Amino acid sequence: MNWLRNRWYQAGWSDEVTTDTPLVRTILNEPVLIWRGADGAPAALFDRCPHRFAPLSAGRIEGDRVTCGYHGLAFGRDGACVANPHSPITSRMNVKSYAMAERHGALWIWMGDPEHPDAADIPALTFIDETPEKARIRMYMPTRANYQLLTDNILDLSHADYLHPTSLGGMMTHAKTSSREEEGKIIVEWQANDCVPPAAFKPLVPAGSNADIWIEVTWQAPALMILGTAAVVPGETRTAADESWTLHNMVPETCTTTHYFACSTRRFLVDDEGFSAMLRGALERAFLHEDKPMLERQQQAMGTDDLWALGPILLPIDAGAVRVRRKLDALIVAEGA
Amino acid sequence: MNWLRNRWYQAGWSDEVTTDTPLVRTILNEPVLIWRGADGAPAALFDRCPHRFAPLSAGRIEGDRVTCGYHGLAFGRDGACVANPHSPITSRMNVKSYAMAERHGALWIWMGDPEHPDAADIPALTFIDETPEKARIRMYMPTRANYQLLTDNILDLSHADYLHPTSLGGMMTHAKTSSREEEGKIIVEWQANDCVPPAAFKPLVPAGSNADIWIEVTWQAPALMILGTAAVVPGETRTAADESWTLHNMVPETCTTTHYFACSTRRFLVDDEGFSAMLRGALERAFLHEDKPMLERQQQAMGTDDLWALGPILLPIDAGAVRVRRKLDALIVAEGA
Amino acid sequence: MNWLRNRWYQAGWSDEVTTDTPLVRTILNEPVLIWRGADGAPAALFDRCPHRFAPLSAGRIEGDRVTCGYHGLAFGRDGACVANPHSPITSRMNVKSYAMAERHGALWIWMGDPEHPDAADIPALTFIDETPEKARIRMYMPTRANYQLLTDNILDLSHADYLHPTSLGGMMTHAKTSSREEEGKIIVEWQANDCVPPAAFKPLVPAGSNADIWIEVTWQAPALMILGTAAVVPGETRTAADESWTLHNMVPETCTTTHYFACSTRRFLVDDEGFSAMLRGALERAFLHEDKPMLERQQQAMGTDDLWALGPILLPIDAGAVRVRRKLDALIVAEGA
Repeated sequence: MNWLRNRWYQAGWSDEVTTDTPLVRTILNEPVLIWRGADGAPAALFDRCPHRFAPLSAGRIEGDRVTCGYHGLAFGRDGACVANPHSPITSRMNVKSYAMAERHGALWIWMGDPEHPDAADIPALTFIDETPEKARIRMYMPTRANYQLLTDNILDLSHADYLHPTSLGGMMTHAKTSSREEEGKIIVEWQANDCVPPAAFKPLVPAGSNADIWIEVTWQAPALMILGTAAVVPGETRTAADESWTLHNMVPETCTTTHYFACSTRRFLVDDEGFSAMLRGALERAFLHEDKPMLERQQQAMGTDDLWALGPILLPIDAGAVRVRRKLDALIVAEGA
Repeated sequence: MNWLRNRWYQAGWSDEVTTDTPLVRTILNEPVLIWRGADGAPAALFDRCPHRFAPLSAGRIEGDRVTCGYHGLAFGRDGACVANPHSPITSRMNVKSYAMAERHGALWIWMGDPEHPDAADIPALTFIDETPEKARIRMYMPTRANYQLLTDNILDLSHADYLHPTSLGGMMTHAKTSSREEEGKIIVEWQANDCVPPAAFKPLVPAGSNADIWIEVTWQAPALMILGTAAVVPGETRTAADESWTLHNMVPETCTTTHYFACSTRRFLVDDEGFSAMLRGALERAFLHEDKPMLERQQQAMGTDDLWALGPILLPIDAGAVRVRRKLDALIVAEGA
Repeated sequence: MNWLRNRWYQAGWSDEVTTDTPLVRTILNEPVLIWRGADGAPAALFDRCPHRFAPLSAGRIEGDRVTCGYHGLAFGRDGACVANPHSPITSRMNVKSYAMAERHGALWIWMGDPEHPDAADIPALTFIDETPEKARIRMYMPTRANYQLLTDNILDLSHADYLHPTSLGGMMTHAKTSSREEEGKIIVEWQANDCVPPAAFKPLVPAGSNADIWIEVTWQAPALMILGTAAVVPGETRTAADESWTLHNMVPETCTTTHYFACSTRRFLVDDEGFSAMLRGALERAFLHEDKPMLERQQQAMGTDDLWALGPILLPIDAGAVRVRRKLDALIVAEGA
């Protein structure tokens, strides 16, 4: 499997790594040791000593320095050897390091060409920053399925009518939908008017009222999606205050497993902790009990076969997901050229 | 591994599938969803939606209709799409269906060319139908060994002297044996005269008496065997009333695992429930505690190697099993041609 | 992976196999059944019947004879068929046997050319025989890592400073070290003078005293090492009475798992059972809690890749281990020629 490498991938949520708690996480099949250095900023090294291939995470971390637990070689956050108790340090004694950044409450890792990490390319998730902490719901949901199956799942929201019929769906199959590309991003939009709102949208309109529901997913390579939703009384015009924005970010762990990071934000009921708790419960239930088992069984049924090799029947609801898969394939080919 | 496909395979016992209880069973490496349709008759579909490869068994079954739980496509018992909420149905939107039949208390599935299932080819197991329910003992014993190792086990009953010396064997090694072919079936026969009967045969002759024991196995492709046995006082002539008939049917799940279906019947003591319970216990003990561990260790020792590739030493006792293996190989080659 | 075959490998400790307790152990990827024959001497057969490949260990052992539990073929300790209930015995009906020997409290198995086992080639471990039983500490520590990683671990004792800093190390990195070859054996030696002794050496010098510590490892192919140690008051000359000798013998089970046999002996405090108990605890803790997890994680990080294919950075501390790896590679190549 070829990955798109010259991208910032989310390595975790900021609070997953503290000064006392490093993290070992496999990303694009590479085991990475992530920790906070002397200044608290995240650092990352390939988790394998270049001497005898012991995992560095089995050693000791002090400030910016990681010491291998097997023979005492130490490396700085840039991967250069900073201590070798046994002989002079040479330039070959280094370990692959990864540029790291912290933004929007998340840790970002650059998996590509070490010459070209540019913090300006970190996905802009300003909607998270603009949301009060109380109205942010962050989740980490590791899943035994290829990341593109998880992308498909978000880009084809008609599935909500079947997999989440009362909580999230019911109106998607007959919603008006379209997709477009803007500056390399692909945007899929749904509009369902005068429909009975599912449970997640009910609190947004008066009791018993129908709703106009708008949903939009903006995908950017390789697998980061921002989902916007709003429900208003039929015929009313939605405003920014009606909108919820949720991050759905699929980070490949291996070919068949994915780190799924999600963050729900909203611009209403921001201080309502009861609503937050209810919403977190609903989101987790939907994914953990409904999507995740389906995605994992889908992956099992597909084995190691590629989606296209299996000749799927394509439906109109796949338009957005297929557009995204083709775009991603082209980006990977272009990067390899 | 090549399978013989144009055959009816036993998919289960009738009572394994009820209106409320569908069954997912892998047969010849294919996951199959088996259920009872509107009329109670068994139906079977390849357990994978042709759209996104979700297992249909993760969806909903209503009468003759199976609805995928992911995007709501529905299929009839013939595999044709009967509902697509997203776009017009086309002829490509179908899933592989399997002809099913129910006979002799068992469910039968046709794994071959969809044009040619003929119910007349279902193995004739009239001895089961002719046996009162109380005198039938049905078993399902999944085993982690290739189905041909299980076939060998039944065709070479001399193993009973070593693996089941007091319960079933003791007289087999020195029995007269022969094999013959009749109408594509291979029949192996043993006759042990004036021998001390093992526990399973003891109740069939007066206490303390020796016995003449007759055993016959009739194999038909790919791996269904009917085993007949009788014990009479030495010198007496056996009649139909003395006979027990047992089905031993080995259905490949994967290359290294087998669905083993067995059904013991008898023409004596048919109302004796105590005898039935004793016999079931003895049969299960013999297989589960003696044959199955041996077969599974044999499979482990052989790994993925073919029997012939390992160069087994052949003995006269292997004559029947080897004849069957060669016949089956020839049938598979002929079918592929 | 190619093995060096024409060598005696340790198959176990003598007390692992009794008249009543046979042992099945995989050595160089071959499953071997080891038992004590009629005269109490160890015998060994490939654990697979040549008839149908049932494991002989699932059968019955009586004296020098092993009877297959599936069809009753019996084999002698030389592997020749001694009973076939079904037909005349032929010369093809034999199973691979292994020459066995018992010496130094251990069982030895010849894995090579059956024509050439010579008991004179059994590694000489007279230091074990010369040690009173009370002062011998035998261990068997199966490990999920390639045997050469375990060899490296013993040949590069500088790791003790990092993995066992207070119990065994602290003075190794700055010790004087050298390696030499003598009669096909490779000897690596360390001398650390006037150093603070780690816990394992403290009892050997007066309380509070520094120590001169001497360590020597003598490797012989394929992976047997004898480690000698002594600690004396700085400036004193060590005598034989100061020495401890420990066997570290790495026997390949598979490419990624190893039977690790160790035996500690000493020439002081030989009757002190408290010291023995303390020492066993310390040795087991060091290996099971410190070396073994590191070696197993090292193996995991390396996967099935060869050490050289991964391009390790070599340090002076690797000199002995690399010399041994090259010697072993050459021996394997020579044997194959």
